[in-house]
Amino acid sequence: MVIEHPEPIRAANHASYNEEKMGKSTLFESSRVLVGLNAFEAGQEHKLHAHAGMDKIYQVIEGNGVLLREDGEDELEEGMTVVVPEGVPHGIRNPGDGRLLVLAILAPGPSAA
Amino acid sequence: MVIEHPEPIRAANHASYNEEKMGKSTLFESSRVLVGLNAFEAGQEHKLHAHAGMDKIYQVIEGNGVLLREDGEDELEEGMTVVVPEGVPHGIRNPGDGRLLVLAILAPGPSAA
Repeated sequence: MVIEHPEPIRAANHASYNEEKMGKSTLFESSRVLVGLNAFEAGQEHKLHAHAGMDKIYQVIEGNGVLLREDGEDELEEGMTVVVPEGVPHGIRNPGDGRLLVLAILAPGPSAA
Repeated sequence: MVIEHPEPIRAANHASYNEEKMGKSTLFESSRVLVGLNAFEAGQEHKLHAHAGMDKIYQVIEGNGVLLREDGEDELEEGMTVVVPEGVPHGIRNPGDGRLLVLAILAPGPSAA
């Protein structure tokens, strides 16, 4: 589905859920930024990882989950925002019964590396 | 209110509404990205403008409004996402009776210019 930026979209219409593992889709990519979606079926997880030189922003679009940090976990509810500065370990788990969809923005875009 | 990133936050708790003009607040800033909030009281507008060399992402946190484009307008509803590639004119108007809060992400951050 091609998006004619800057048209307003419902991110959920562009989600790519995958029974095998967390699904990814891309809304926009440039050298400056990657705007994507991470789609978690119940029980799926994106384990703890870090991005050198890239800041990340998560925005929970639908569902609830858990933010994984190096030293603990936080509840992640629909509508919440998370800023992950470069180099800081982070991950997401969907322990619930329903789906979890998260907007994931990386700056700069990985293609700039 | 200091945010200990990467703690999950409710962006609305960090909004800065201003009776005089659109209110701005900053959630995070680096050379790579600026994560801020644009808070519109009823009737307020951020008129058409563009950012050379910076991509922008809007995420509507609460309320409804109108996305201004060079050649028209689009409805902007709670939960919607907009990607504005660098150089593309854009703005936001809150024509409604209620407040409108929009997460506004710029990459790279203006401080990198």
